[in-house]
Amino acid sequence: MRARKISSASREPKHINALAFDAYGTLFDVFSVTALCEQLFPGTGHALAQLWRAKQLQYSVWRSLMGRYEDFWRVTGDGLVYASKSLKLDLTAAKRTQLMDTYLNLTLFPDVKPGLEALKELGFRLAILSNGAPTMLDLVIKNAGIDTLLDAVVSADDVHVFKPSPVVYRAVSERLEVQLHELAFVSSNAWDVSGAASAGLMAFWMQRAAGEPPEELGYAATRVVTSLPELAELLTRS
Amino acid sequence: MRARKISSASREPKHINALAFDAYGTLFDVFSVTALCEQLFPGTGHALAQLWRAKQLQYSVWRSLMGRYEDFWRVTGDGLVYASKSLKLDLTAAKRTQLMDTYLNLTLFPDVKPGLEALKELGFRLAILSNGAPTMLDLVIKNAGIDTLLDAVVSADDVHVFKPSPVVYRAVSERLEVQLHELAFVSSNAWDVSGAASAGLMAFWMQRAAGEPPEELGYAATRVVTSLPELAELLTRS
Repeated sequence: MRARKISSASREPKHINALAFDAYGTLFDVFSVTALCEQLFPGTGHALAQLWRAKQLQYSVWRSLMGRYEDFWRVTGDGLVYASKSLKLDLTAAKRTQLMDTYLNLTLFPDVKPGLEALKELGFRLAILSNGAPTMLDLVIKNAGIDTLLDAVVSADDVHVFKPSPVVYRAVSERLEVQLHELAFVSSNAWDVSGAASAGLMAFWMQRAAGEPPEELGYAATRVVTSLPELAELLTRS
Repeated sequence: MRARKISSASREPKHINALAFDAYGTLFDVFSVTALCEQLFPGTGHALAQLWRAKQLQYSVWRSLMGRYEDFWRVTGDGLVYASKSLKLDLTAAKRTQLMDTYLNLTLFPDVKPGLEALKELGFRLAILSNGAPTMLDLVIKNAGIDTLLDAVVSADDVHVFKPSPVVYRAVSERLEVQLHELAFVSSNAWDVSGAASAGLMAFWMQRAAGEPPEELGYAATRVVTSLPELAELLTRS
């Protein structure tokens, strides 16, 4: 592994040796479940996918704050049950299994593989840092064929609390044995960017939805990028 | 103050001496802001009110989990700024002030005053337990004319973390100097009910939206009621 040192002006990426990526919505397109939702529940699929995702996130933070951690597979299943009940859909066991299994076969955004390859080539150590349960992450990563590009997969399950708790972000630096200031975090979720920045990491916002405003949480992104190759380019120039 | 003891079967209300009520959405109709939103931003008012409320809640839990508490007035203002940006609305300083001030003059649901009076008559000590900042709560309570019915107003600001952290719910029992098992909590928000139940309080779900399913968080409500007089009736019969 080549050492990677970036020297630059204040608020510029510097001394970054490792990059950690959020998984769902950043590397993997979670709304690729919408197609199956729509197929199983014609006319309501989009609403189901949106509400399912919203509940999955709510349950992860509420459970964390309640001190009642359960892993992301459970939280994802609970979110699906709520969303189905709320929309008055008949979620049979077979449909539930089919929908949950989409989380193990999510589509990569098209820029992800070339972007990770470029960053790897630049000498960065690469990791995933996700709320996802270890088994979920292992399967989706292998199915997408990016397992060989990653040095570590860190799950919120390792610390039994979900993002944006600072405990989760700091777990990556421990796993990779790098200092916080050597580590940058990349997420498409603006709240996740604020969480990482608040925890002391450099944070890049991968803005996948054009025109989306940042969250009003303080702790802004160091930079905003729109693709992983653009991030690789930025880090090459720094 | 008369002592109030209710004896009953398992999972029935018993030994309840005090009742704590959530404020926003439970006693006060938060969607009464929609009218002003619609007046200031014709055609987008409903969407603004919905997104504003969603962001207000998200910011309260994200900040709690990040360990970056700011009070609910700040969080409410930040939610309004985000919602306006997201919907591409021109939030002038004057409009911002007008909208924020609605939080100080929210409408009571029609059942609230007669319900609180009936419960007071039954001998219960009554409190509000809210995420709201103390000044927000004082003003909205006085403007609605229910200040004389309340024995205490407990704010998340007292403990610098928001619901559904157990710390917030337990703050009421300390303030009223009653044991947790003597205290019942009432909220229209199903997640708030789960939070209170998880913290060890008896919890009643005031279901203001007909047909709304409970949250899939475990820690279900002891009972579901649809108005405060119905709760008073239930507690009389117990």
